[in-house]
Amino acid sequence: MSLSVTAQRAPGAADSRRPSPIMREAAAGTPQPRRRPAQLAAAGPLQCPPARRPRCRGDGAVLPAWAALPAEVGGGRLGMAAALPAEVGGGRLGMAAALPAEVGGGRVGMAAAAKVEAAAAAAEERVRVWAAAQVASGRRVALVTSGGTQVPLETRAVRFLENFSSGRRGAVSAECLVSAGYGVCFLHRARSVFPWARVLPPPGPALLDAFRLTPGPPPGVAADPDALPALLPALRAYREAADAGALLSLEFTDLNEYLALLRATARALAPFGSGVMFYLAAAVSDFYIPASEMPEHKIQSSEGALQITMKMVPKMLSPLVKEWAPEAFVISFKLETDPLILIDKSRQALEKYRHQVVVANILESRRTSVIIVTKDSQTPLSLSEEEIAQGVEIEEKIVSYLQGQHTLFMEKKI
Amino acid sequence: MSLSVTAQRAPGAADSRRPSPIMREAAAGTPQPRRRPAQLAAAGPLQCPPARRPRCRGDGAVLPAWAALPAEVGGGRLGMAAALPAEVGGGRLGMAAALPAEVGGGRVGMAAAAKVEAAAAAAEERVRVWAAAQVASGRRVALVTSGGTQVPLETRAVRFLENFSSGRRGAVSAECLVSAGYGVCFLHRARSVFPWARVLPPPGPALLDAFRLTPGPPPGVAADPDALPALLPALRAYREAADAGALLSLEFTDLNEYLALLRATARALAPFGSGVMFYLAAAVSDFYIPASEMPEHKIQSSEGALQITMKMVPKMLSPLVKEWAPEAFVISFKLETDPLILIDKSRQALEKYRHQVVVANILESRRTSVIIVTKDSQTPLSLSEEEIAQGVEIEEKIVSYLQGQHTLFMEKKI
Repeated sequence: MSLSVTAQRAPGAADSRRPSPIMREAAAGTPQPRRRPAQLAAAGPLQCPPARRPRCRGDGAVLPAWAALPAEVGGGRLGMAAALPAEVGGGRLGMAAALPAEVGGGRVGMAAAAKVEAAAAAAEERVRVWAAAQVASGRRVALVTSGGTQVPLETRAVRFLENFSSGRRGAVSAECLVSAGYGVCFLHRARSVFPWARVLPPPGPALLDAFRLTPGPPPGVAADPDALPALLPALRAYREAADAGALLSLEFTDLNEYLALLRATARALAPFGSGVMFYLAAAVSDFYIPASEMPEHKIQSSEGALQITMKMVPKMLSPLVKEWAPEAFVISFKLETDPLILIDKSRQALEKYRHQVVVANILESRRTSVIIVTKDSQTPLSLSEEEIAQGVEIEEKIVSYLQGQHTLFMEKKI
Repeated sequence: MSLSVTAQRAPGAADSRRPSPIMREAAAGTPQPRRRPAQLAAAGPLQCPPARRPRCRGDGAVLPAWAALPAEVGGGRLGMAAALPAEVGGGRLGMAAALPAEVGGGRVGMAAAAKVEAAAAAAEERVRVWAAAQVASGRRVALVTSGGTQVPLETRAVRFLENFSSGRRGAVSAECLVSAGYGVCFLHRARSVFPWARVLPPPGPALLDAFRLTPGPPPGVAADPDALPALLPALRAYREAADAGALLSLEFTDLNEYLALLRATARALAPFGSGVMFYLAAAVSDFYIPASEMPEHKIQSSEGALQITMKMVPKMLSPLVKEWAPEAFVISFKLETDPLILIDKSRQALEKYRHQVVVANILESRRTSVIIVTKDSQTPLSLSEEEIAQGVEIEEKIVSYLQGQHTLFMEKKI
């Protein structure tokens, strides 16, 4: 029998055990000097110092982590990722722009990439204004990413690689963070679990049965009494959050949209320094197919077995921590199925990306227990049988613990 | 650059251009003599004639299409698919059981497979009773499949191959079929678009904003006036259908569940002969990874590029038409991205599977135009600009046309 799924080097690709240029620079890049938190009034686009503009591109030279291609992208605000085009054969667009074209593919992909970029630019401005208002009203700010990314296998795609994630972790955490006094920018997969809306059943007979016709006049629709005990408090909490503007919702579906929006929101939040928490709970694909290697049309099943080779997506934690928002409190999530490698993988991530916290969890037990891993500590959190029976959510404990860590971080005690 | 996605033979696999045993038998199998519609009272498990029990298994011999493994599976009700175990190295379980184990994998997979089988058996009984009641009350019966299947890439899976489908085609069609007097068994992907519930926004702020708190006492929740014009008629139609029992909802998520439920429902509906319509709108994966070739744990991205080889899923249209429900009126859907091959592919399917209708559609234009392809005809249906503006759905035209074809089929005029 043929070996079916192997994590191995792509035939013809460069030795993938050697880090790609973008990974090399991420690993080797000198940590940026920590800037003082910018004042609210001073919050504006971060300028790339002219003297440090990249000397070359497209010739295989490694670009420094902060390298931008201002002339090409019209703003000097693209960073590390700008190295990717050289790697993947592009050149005109900065990374978050290049990845979309690469992932989306060809003519269709280029148009889609331009749309993604425009949406990300609009989101950046929106988040900047929103965050300023939140901070002005005394809230800390958190970016919560949630749900799984989609990666197309065809240019006109009918098939996709999906990462498992209902979005429940992110949605419940967002609720807890709002309760704890954060303004939350909720960057989530479209149609994944949404804060407060999660008390409603998914689309189906149960959702329809949660409502009944009221005769009137005029005729109307009301929640079924059975649905009220869950729906009333959720709707109240949502209204309260909505009135305070404490939840800003942004949606992604595919990997490009996620990457472009992550960078846009990170930049918009960077001026608020250590008061910003990044709570990166989304399940982001590690793999994608470059546009140049993607078939345009639906893969025909009549041609036999299917063989797919996917490239690695550069980890965005690196530019996020080093460049986009270097002063923020950054939490990543590590989901594994093998408990034996969980802590090692978490520690490796902390060492590699130099961020503050990894929330480590195992697929089967993720709803009831996690381990909070920091440079110096390892703190298991779990629900007791009693707490489970009472409907306590593990996210309440995670957020409560991390809120405390964030306070210590802001006070420079950790 | 390495070639990235190719539809080609798996290394080490048998020549996949030669049909697999199951495909060979599907192609070569003598059409079964058409049985008279069984009377309701006589509806029971179809018995496999003892003389035709398979002579051998596990030795590579081609099993006849009707072959069952009664001794192993305890019931003589498993059909063609029983050939798969021999092909994929199993032996104890019949096909719908074997595929789940194969797709689900290992110990985890075996337990899951048993669960899937039990659920399918329960569904079969439920559909049998429900359909009898529908027919007794003067309704024809339709099985509508809807939404996309999920195929895991790991045994303890965090990554999946997904086929694109919102489930909109199936959901709107189910509504139209109920209106046209059919009892509809709606076999759909969990969380895909659901009949009538589709007027509600997806989970997110828009869904929460569709409702408002009513002060009471007692406090309650009512639909926002803006949501009422769409919600009221949908909820009324749903209630009417629910009261008549005209919609039976069954859910699947992964490919195994879909296959097992398709077979179970097909068998439950077979006794109702030509009065049954199969409306197969689900987007079913053409590819899967056998359990024996699947990594147990999450594929580690640190090991470089990802290479995946997937096998072809046997087309279930073949046993459905030849064996499970040979007298039914069967409609399949063909979605392509390349208009140049659409009609040819549709005609090939009709010739190969000998069913009645293919609804051919192109990804980009599927919401406004289709071509109904039969052995002798090719009928384009489309929406005019005016109809689009009025909110007419293409499914209204599809269902109206197919209802007429079904009547002619029942009267043996086509």
